[in-house]
Amino acid sequence: MSHRLVFALLAGLCGASPALADEGMWLPNAFPSAKVETTYGFKPDQAWIDHVRLGAIRLTNGCSASLVSANGLVMTNHHCVRGCLEQLSTPGDDAAASGFTAKTAADERRCPTAEANQLIAMSEVTARVKAAIDGRNGQDQSAALRAIKATIESECAGGDESVRCDVVTLYRGGRYDLYKYRRYQDVRLVFAPEEAAAFFGGDPDNFEFPRYDVDVGFLRIYDHGKPLDSSTDHLTFVSRPVVVGEPTFTIGNPGRTERLFTVAQLDELRRFSLPRLALYLSELRGQLTQFAQRGPEQRRVADGNLFGVENSLKQEKGLLRALNEPAAVDRSRNDETQLRARIGVQAGAGDPWNEIAEAVERHRAISDREFMLVNEIRYASRLLGFAQILIRHAAEASKPETARLPDYSSARFPALRQRLLSPAPISEDLENLQLSFWLTKLREILGTDDPTVKQLLAGLSPEARAASLIHDSKLFDPAYRQHLLDGDAATLDANRDPMIEFARLLDPEARAIQAKADAEYETPIEAASGRIERAAFAVDGSRIAPDATFSLRISYGSVQGWTEPGRTVSATTEFAGLWNRATGADPFRLTSRWLAAKSTIPPTTVLNFVTTNDVTGGNSGSPVVDRAGAVIGLIFDGNIHSLGGDYFYDGALNRSVVVGTPAIRAALDQVYHADRILKELDPRT
Amino acid sequence: MSHRLVFALLAGLCGASPALADEGMWLPNAFPSAKVETTYGFKPDQAWIDHVRLGAIRLTNGCSASLVSANGLVMTNHHCVRGCLEQLSTPGDDAAASGFTAKTAADERRCPTAEANQLIAMSEVTARVKAAIDGRNGQDQSAALRAIKATIESECAGGDESVRCDVVTLYRGGRYDLYKYRRYQDVRLVFAPEEAAAFFGGDPDNFEFPRYDVDVGFLRIYDHGKPLDSSTDHLTFVSRPVVVGEPTFTIGNPGRTERLFTVAQLDELRRFSLPRLALYLSELRGQLTQFAQRGPEQRRVADGNLFGVENSLKQEKGLLRALNEPAAVDRSRNDETQLRARIGVQAGAGDPWNEIAEAVERHRAISDREFMLVNEIRYASRLLGFAQILIRHAAEASKPETARLPDYSSARFPALRQRLLSPAPISEDLENLQLSFWLTKLREILGTDDPTVKQLLAGLSPEARAASLIHDSKLFDPAYRQHLLDGDAATLDANRDPMIEFARLLDPEARAIQAKADAEYETPIEAASGRIERAAFAVDGSRIAPDATFSLRISYGSVQGWTEPGRTVSATTEFAGLWNRATGADPFRLTSRWLAAKSTIPPTTVLNFVTTNDVTGGNSGSPVVDRAGAVIGLIFDGNIHSLGGDYFYDGALNRSVVVGTPAIRAALDQVYHADRILKELDPRT
Repeated sequence: MSHRLVFALLAGLCGASPALADEGMWLPNAFPSAKVETTYGFKPDQAWIDHVRLGAIRLTNGCSASLVSANGLVMTNHHCVRGCLEQLSTPGDDAAASGFTAKTAADERRCPTAEANQLIAMSEVTARVKAAIDGRNGQDQSAALRAIKATIESECAGGDESVRCDVVTLYRGGRYDLYKYRRYQDVRLVFAPEEAAAFFGGDPDNFEFPRYDVDVGFLRIYDHGKPLDSSTDHLTFVSRPVVVGEPTFTIGNPGRTERLFTVAQLDELRRFSLPRLALYLSELRGQLTQFAQRGPEQRRVADGNLFGVENSLKQEKGLLRALNEPAAVDRSRNDETQLRARIGVQAGAGDPWNEIAEAVERHRAISDREFMLVNEIRYASRLLGFAQILIRHAAEASKPETARLPDYSSARFPALRQRLLSPAPISEDLENLQLSFWLTKLREILGTDDPTVKQLLAGLSPEARAASLIHDSKLFDPAYRQHLLDGDAATLDANRDPMIEFARLLDPEARAIQAKADAEYETPIEAASGRIERAAFAVDGSRIAPDATFSLRISYGSVQGWTEPGRTVSATTEFAGLWNRATGADPFRLTSRWLAAKSTIPPTTVLNFVTTNDVTGGNSGSPVVDRAGAVIGLIFDGNIHSLGGDYFYDGALNRSVVVGTPAIRAALDQVYHADRILKELDPRT
Repeated sequence: MSHRLVFALLAGLCGASPALADEGMWLPNAFPSAKVETTYGFKPDQAWIDHVRLGAIRLTNGCSASLVSANGLVMTNHHCVRGCLEQLSTPGDDAAASGFTAKTAADERRCPTAEANQLIAMSEVTARVKAAIDGRNGQDQSAALRAIKATIESECAGGDESVRCDVVTLYRGGRYDLYKYRRYQDVRLVFAPEEAAAFFGGDPDNFEFPRYDVDVGFLRIYDHGKPLDSSTDHLTFVSRPVVVGEPTFTIGNPGRTERLFTVAQLDELRRFSLPRLALYLSELRGQLTQFAQRGPEQRRVADGNLFGVENSLKQEKGLLRALNEPAAVDRSRNDETQLRARIGVQAGAGDPWNEIAEAVERHRAISDREFMLVNEIRYASRLLGFAQILIRHAAEASKPETARLPDYSSARFPALRQRLLSPAPISEDLENLQLSFWLTKLREILGTDDPTVKQLLAGLSPEARAASLIHDSKLFDPAYRQHLLDGDAATLDANRDPMIEFARLLDPEARAIQAKADAEYETPIEAASGRIERAAFAVDGSRIAPDATFSLRISYGSVQGWTEPGRTVSATTEFAGLWNRATGADPFRLTSRWLAAKSTIPPTTVLNFVTTNDVTGGNSGSPVVDRAGAVIGLIFDGNIHSLGGDYFYDGALNRSVVVGTPAIRAALDQVYHADRILKELDPRT
């Protein structure tokens, strides 16, 4: 599971079908403790919930994490610190591949673009949002929605950059909550194993089980230059084997689900959006694979992108396959029919399903343009991303907060600024590959004769155009980016850096498409979905959790294998299975220090396990805690059946995939001899 | 349109909806002359039909062509002789890119794997085939079907390798005809322009219009070492501008359509087969693109594959998009419902639609394995292809004709033998790319723990395994392949060439999967579809043409542009448009000799035009003739709307794309100064 995921366009089975077994990514302020008690004989109380909430950390790269010591030590996945490892790696020192251990506190290295959030308060603001948008339409409504969110967020943050406030749209517009976070941008790398152990099995084993990965990484939050005092907020790390059937809880930030989508929305995904994205990623995967095969340096610079693309692609393919299953199609139609009947909605004027279907149909006319000019542009080129931030910041900073593009409000801009100013080196070769690819797809998807395409290519081939923009750009230099950010708007206007000029060429249409999508698609759907969900709530109550929104959720479940046609899968794997699976050929190759530990780690030590907890992309790095609130595992994946979880949760098959704490302990102890971390995790050691 | 296409898994709208306008790829022995007369005031008689049939040539690489002189000169597309150009190219002499002109007859070069077929007789054999299969089921029925076809074909060929006989399954099993061809394997390259002119606009313009391509190539058939005497059989080449609205006829070999597919078959394509193939090709495209960017030699060896993959991919995406259109889904369901009602079929026992749906459902269990081990294996590696031919030939040659795999009957084996013995050089780098890719996808699609996958990878990574098989194989050498073909089965059994051993490892399962697919899927569907189509014929008559089968068809239509939302497209393009579109950047770059001709070719000379003729992949290279039977153009593509033509023909939008003879003449005359060919095309010159 990766961060790209979290922001990608995904989807979910609609309606108010009976919640199944352990279904639900529940709000901390609406947790179904009574239901948990019925199933598992344990009723989490408010103190328990508050404790795990404050011990949980959101990483803004799309991951989850937890505080596991009194001194700001944060546990997450290797694949969640992978970006940091890449940014810190250099030719000849590939930290992403070889891992990292800070021997002393002084060796801990700041991750250039990491941001950690701790959720400290939540309150409902539905009435205020609804009052601002009700009775409005189109552009007017979408501007009002943006303005009220910005107003609430900036009131809450009060100009304090150490606080982050988000208005979270829950139940697709049925409810709005204000979340207040402590924001930390000084986050340092403490430990990561080598990729061969963290991602053993590679893409072939990704989303599969049985599994044998030590997908762990440790960070430390610094506050005013010192390790954060988390003596009251952290969770206890315990290394003990799980018991099959024991209740488990995950606390994390699932990215996106679409279980409340209507049939019209699901049909659009199945027919157009999912195939388009999967085909795009598939071709990019091919390019990155060949590029990485040119030599070790190309592999080093491309590996992170390749990992992200393969991870997303495997997910998109799973989503497409799940949605195309005839049973899924039938089920979504039945669920919708039943919900309409329960609510008592008639076809005709005021039918929110019809409003959504019309918005989906309208959106098709701009959907390809939005995909290329708004969505995929983010992955096209880092330099282009910098240029876009610079010119947009210059334009937005002079506007009132409520009229700005959302990411450019003073409450949100720190995240972009951190990305802009990251000192991580940038590969010119990889930039060329990615921007050429994006330009090629732009021409392919929008057409050779499209005026925007012609303007952006300027009569050159995609490769020549990309090279001309990249080769002479000064945006490779973080000091230069800082200089442009600090300068006034007039200085930026006069700047003739080719990438800045290109971003300027692109921006008017990108903004126009985004505004059109907001006014004609996103906002009307949010309004109509909100009506459906409030009506559903009135007849069904809060049986259903809201769709995931990359905000804090708690899920409950238990340690359990599963049975599918042709096989029964046990709940746990052991180190014996790892040694057995290690053929010596990538991606089933272990390093010598791992092989050396074969004789010292008891072969029956539990390595990974699966639980029925309902998780999705964004939950990567979530702690798995027991009823005592102690950490017994670390979410790092879901099984292949969980991919359909974007649309529906099937308790018989959907499983989260977890690194057991005994495996983390064994690796730190026997393989890495990381005594400093061990001691911190368990002061009694 | 390319040859890969013709053999790829495609599909078509079912049922007996009213034939639209110029719909239909008609049989030469069931041509609707009366209907043509009603629409166009011209009734082709039997002499006219026989004349164009004998002037048409099938190229077994998946293309069509025509005899255009008395001395065996054959006109087809550049992209149909592209394979030959690649086979004749060498490092430093890239004939595919730079073109080829034989200055004298002695300079004409034999294409290593070309085979030309001329259709000399047709007869219906439905009763004989039905008698052999009726009352049988499963394996028994599929063996009987294979045996009766082999028996009929070998009786017809009578052991004469200069004759080729095919039993053609028409109307999906509703009718069987025996086609007898003259077979020519000495086919030599006479002329091809450079790719920059033949495929001007490249992938971006492929399947688009307006278009500006001189996609022409000339071959010559040799018979017993001398140019074929085609004085009675050839078509007359006339260079004249077309008139909008004038009737046009194409004579060629459309590859595959699926217009008679049932809803169950279309749903399977839309949901599973088409996305799977498109995703596969998309990733391969990415790999080939990056590989080609390593340098000119890599570009030379990869360009042909890249062209084929891009061409197929664009088509698959178009098919997927067409099938996913809500209107297409609704239409296919309505058509099927109406046809059932007209025929009077009730649900329950004996319902052929239900039998097809059940076969489709059964097939899903082996569909991924068939895709990898039977379908895509053909493109995985040329050496592996050779090895498979060798071991299968050794195994099959000792069996009676009727029990052999179809391609290994004595009537059909010459095509494989020619491929096996081709002297064309093979790139080890490209072999490595393609076989690694196939092995990677094999593991991905069938799963890491699949026993076949484990056995085929032998504990190595896909890259290492591919290299180990390719590097030490002697199959690069055509003389070695000849030696193995000539040797006895025991010699081959003892052979330890790594690629032969690999093919041996693979073959039992590949055969088993193929046999299972034949017995449980192909044959039952052919039987059930045959019943539907014969019943449809009884109520509707022969209003509908059979689906395309890469056998000779004649379509009628007229020169016509079209109107779609947002634009009206004229029927013709002129050289002025070419000069205007030539930005100088690939793929919109012309060579200097083309630019030099700008002043001498009148700018209003017609370059390409579109017609309403119903064509598809396999029609590439088909002559377009006027009512006099004279060649006025050369099919080389369809417009983007024609991609949906696999499922339904929409006369308002579907267009064939044609090179006009004036453009061919101008290129030969003003650009290439190919006087020898010009004189032969028009002896009066």
